[in-house]
Amino acid sequence: MAHTEAQNGGGAAPPVVFTAAKPQLMVDAPRASDAVAFYKAAFGAEELGRSFHPKRKADQEAPLVLSSQIVLAGLAILVSDNADAPFPAAEPETKGTKSAIVLETEEVDLAVANAVKAGAILEGGEVAETDGGVRAEKVVVDPFGFTWIISAPVKKSAEVEEA
Amino acid sequence: MAHTEAQNGGGAAPPVVFTAAKPQLMVDAPRASDAVAFYKAAFGAEELGRSFHPKRKADQEAPLVLSSQIVLAGLAILVSDNADAPFPAAEPETKGTKSAIVLETEEVDLAVANAVKAGAILEGGEVAETDGGVRAEKVVVDPFGFTWIISAPVKKSAEVEEA
Repeated sequence: MAHTEAQNGGGAAPPVVFTAAKPQLMVDAPRASDAVAFYKAAFGAEELGRSFHPKRKADQEAPLVLSSQIVLAGLAILVSDNADAPFPAAEPETKGTKSAIVLETEEVDLAVANAVKAGAILEGGEVAETDGGVRAEKVVVDPFGFTWIISAPVKKSAEVEEA
Repeated sequence: MAHTEAQNGGGAAPPVVFTAAKPQLMVDAPRASDAVAFYKAAFGAEELGRSFHPKRKADQEAPLVLSSQIVLAGLAILVSDNADAPFPAAEPETKGTKSAIVLETEEVDLAVANAVKAGAILEGGEVAETDGGVRAEKVVVDPFGFTWIISAPVKKSAEVEEA
């Protein structure tokens, strides 16, 4: 999919290149670690890596999980502690449990603009701190009630695009 | 991952081969079709195919979407009308919107047994009717509140396993 901003006329939104899409399971903190253990035991999931919330590393015995990446039948799934994540507040019945799909792109603002133009609502945005630095991250809710997290790639490679 | 039932001793659950894992977005019926149009417009998703609910084909003007498979940044996502799907009733606040991850396997019963042994709760099971015939499908909710649909593969290929 070529990125041609020149075509941004009329009703068509300019194309955005999404480099990855992953479901994210937001677990009532601090149970993300338990959840990963469960997915290993229940489904044979494999954990590829885990990052922790930098702000809480010092002042907690067990640091909160910013994101654990597991793989199950080829599907990458993120499992996170739902603490002060950039997420709409969960209903009491779900005990903080909520899910979303993370869409990674270098063009966060353009992707958000496209989604809003199509009918999504921007719930919030922030610069998320990670182990590897900071990245832009915005949350939109679509007209059907689902949450999408539009995020710059977690591991930002060299700024070479396909152009 | 070899399937060795002989190792089913002690605490270790026998391995199950999952052939696919896909997030499924259950949309308040009959808006699944609108949702797919939105994901195309908002994110540039591509629709690969769509199946309809056979029971309702005759008596409704627009048949309910059993499952539309879309692809977004390489991720296969199922979008479905949440009508009489084998799904826990959604809360009124979410207007029938709910999500799950579908795990496909030829070994549905064994996969469910493993999940329950690890702490999941079996919510229901049924034989789901599809355009292509019937398939076994069971719903489990994990200890963290997430729903998993353990299903026989939608398109059952020849019964040749890797063995």
